[in-house]
Amino acid sequence: MKIGTFSFEEYIEKVISFHGSVAPGMIAGGFMVDLARTNLPPGEFFDVICEASHCLPDAVQILTPCTIGNGWLKIVPTGRFAVIFFEKHTGAGTRVFMDPEKLEKWSEIKSWFFRIIPKHQQDSALLVSQLQEAGNSIYSIEQVTVKERFITKIVKETPAIILCPSCGEAYPENFGVPCPACAGNGPCE
Amino acid sequence: MKIGTFSFEEYIEKVISFHGSVAPGMIAGGFMVDLARTNLPPGEFFDVICEASHCLPDAVQILTPCTIGNGWLKIVPTGRFAVIFFEKHTGAGTRVFMDPEKLEKWSEIKSWFFRIIPKHQQDSALLVSQLQEAGNSIYSIEQVTVKERFITKIVKETPAIILCPSCGEAYPENFGVPCPACAGNGPCE
Repeated sequence: MKIGTFSFEEYIEKVISFHGSVAPGMIAGGFMVDLARTNLPPGEFFDVICEASHCLPDAVQILTPCTIGNGWLKIVPTGRFAVIFFEKHTGAGTRVFMDPEKLEKWSEIKSWFFRIIPKHQQDSALLVSQLQEAGNSIYSIEQVTVKERFITKIVKETPAIILCPSCGEAYPENFGVPCPACAGNGPCE
Repeated sequence: MKIGTFSFEEYIEKVISFHGSVAPGMIAGGFMVDLARTNLPPGEFFDVICEASHCLPDAVQILTPCTIGNGWLKIVPTGRFAVIFFEKHTGAGTRVFMDPEKLEKWSEIKSWFFRIIPKHQQDSALLVSQLQEAGNSIYSIEQVTVKERFITKIVKETPAIILCPSCGEAYPENFGVPCPACAGNGPCE
């Protein structure tokens, strides 16, 4: 069994080194990323969107050239455990999601995914082995088109950098005046 | 010169392997992450917030255990080129930002940071050498407290997972009904 170019064991090593622990979502994420990549629509350049902010983005960052900081991976948090690979100039994409209807025969996966039993009562070994055994069978694939704002334009307008009249720091002018932090939307008190 | 536990050259190798290219923001990000980490307030467990969504998050992911998928790194896009390391239970943090006032003597850094000349006219070699030579001197540090919502609570309530009545996929109930995608806020058409 391979995940990307890695053996399952090599992938697990990468997960521990990058993500910190072998979270079940990272194993599922590995299968999902692989499934999306092998079912791509035609095209040359693909970007990725994750609909979940936990685990899935790290599977993408381990298995593809797309990272959150190089702009080829975006997170649009709908809460659904789904990943979309799409051609960046057309928006045509392949969406892979954990399919609730396919979980009936996998008791431990279902318990984990639906949070039926608390995390500390999960049987981690059984969960990992069920995720391995289930392989690609618990996910579904659909063809989608992403919204216009995610499609890369050939000619891109780059906003000017201005100084915020309030904090004096630099930021792109399309964020408005004052900067979002001084407008009350920053991370700090 | 070291960035984290890496020599400058080792860091550049990591950047190419993970981020794909030696973007100037990745070099600046390396210094900024280092500066934040060596000026932390007292505490044991630190989370990170990036105020810029490009480059900086990848410097964090290369140099710390914090990733976007394990939840220890968050992006709050204010447009400002700043990173915050904060104690996860108190919210006390150290914020490092690119300081416009300190860029006067670095012509190529200033041109890049303020987008004064188009990217293809930049002198990349000069820019990289100025960023190296400037070292920590072009950033400023301030002590901050992050907003309540970023602070990790000891007892965390985990929302139940429900099925969306519209798409049938699973998601946390605190996202509302129907799920954000079916409410029009998903990534796809």
